[in-house]
Amino acid sequence: MSDIYEVIHRRRDVRGQFTGEPIPDDVLARVLAAAHAAPSVGLSQPWDFILIRSAATRAAFHEHVMHERDVFAATLPDSSSFEKIKIEGVRESTLSIVVTYDPDRGSPAVLGRHAIADAGLYSVCLAIQNLWLAATAESLGVGWVSFYRESFVQEMLGIPPSVRPVAWLCLGPVTHLESTPDLERHGWRRRTPWQEAVHSERWPSFTPGRED
Amino acid sequence: MSDIYEVIHRRRDVRGQFTGEPIPDDVLARVLAAAHAAPSVGLSQPWDFILIRSAATRAAFHEHVMHERDVFAATLPDSSSFEKIKIEGVRESTLSIVVTYDPDRGSPAVLGRHAIADAGLYSVCLAIQNLWLAATAESLGVGWVSFYRESFVQEMLGIPPSVRPVAWLCLGPVTHLESTPDLERHGWRRRTPWQEAVHSERWPSFTPGRED
Repeated sequence: MSDIYEVIHRRRDVRGQFTGEPIPDDVLARVLAAAHAAPSVGLSQPWDFILIRSAATRAAFHEHVMHERDVFAATLPDSSSFEKIKIEGVRESTLSIVVTYDPDRGSPAVLGRHAIADAGLYSVCLAIQNLWLAATAESLGVGWVSFYRESFVQEMLGIPPSVRPVAWLCLGPVTHLESTPDLERHGWRRRTPWQEAVHSERWPSFTPGRED
Repeated sequence: MSDIYEVIHRRRDVRGQFTGEPIPDDVLARVLAAAHAAPSVGLSQPWDFILIRSAATRAAFHEHVMHERDVFAATLPDSSSFEKIKIEGVRESTLSIVVTYDPDRGSPAVLGRHAIADAGLYSVCLAIQNLWLAATAESLGVGWVSFYRESFVQEMLGIPPSVRPVAWLCLGPVTHLESTPDLERHGWRRRTPWQEAVHSERWPSFTPGRED
């Protein structure tokens, strides 16, 4: 039994603490079933989960990510604070999970999507957060890698052009979860108090996000 | 203490069961703090939450939603199964929460967003799922209304053009949560087993989503 608030606040985006140990089948089943229990627009359940254990596939993705890391670093006026930040644990984690969005699931008439085309994409993200929290409850780490081009992942995994890769997740046992996010520990950015994000009745008139 | 798996599987998208009773301040604070504890690309925390209690604002939104409901119904070859489905509880629920995405939060260099422009939008959805689960743990219902035009909500709430409304959520005490989603009870669509969404190493070669 894992208290939901404890899990929500303990959850981290993991890069450096993966051990590579196996994930028991029953644990993985619970985590995937939790993801699949997410809400979805028009009950379309437009997600798929591709589990990747192949070392060759993960090495190829890792190489691509390292290239995209360099692309981002080159855009920074000063990349010194970025250089010490580890951005992925693709090879050290036990499993990669690619989560995709299929807009044709539930078509032609997806209830609730006619006015907001991205609503299906939003559903996929809700499933990802369920997965993330369930994994945290199971004492697994999750890291969402986003230094990649969608077309690279589509080609590598044979994903059709109409299906969009939404996330590359690294999953597996970890030595521990850090109590402070990596980006905060490394001085990249600090978290704000939740009260700064909450407003009453309308968008605030002054500096957005700074008063109610 | 609420077990995370129990909450994940009990969570529903609520339309018809809102009582309109008040939400205690400490409960609302826990729910919003849970939302704000979500992961975000580059620790950008690009979300805002506009709490709407005004009956006038909610009535105006309700009218807009009813219009969009008609727009959708007109696209259906046969709208009889849609007609009995309630799509929102905007006026009956205690509170509306509009969740927005501000792409300028954390700019100019959002770590992890250079290759995937939508990564910030994904972060907002992760916060929404945290909110949804926390509310469920607090025995509140949540309903995500998606029959609206983003520009309508922007204008009504004074949201700047650069900030995108991602969700209109209805929140509040409920008589109960249904054990089966409304859309399944009303015969609109059935949920699939999670195993159908899981694949190994690559996108499946045959009918997508139907085999591993």
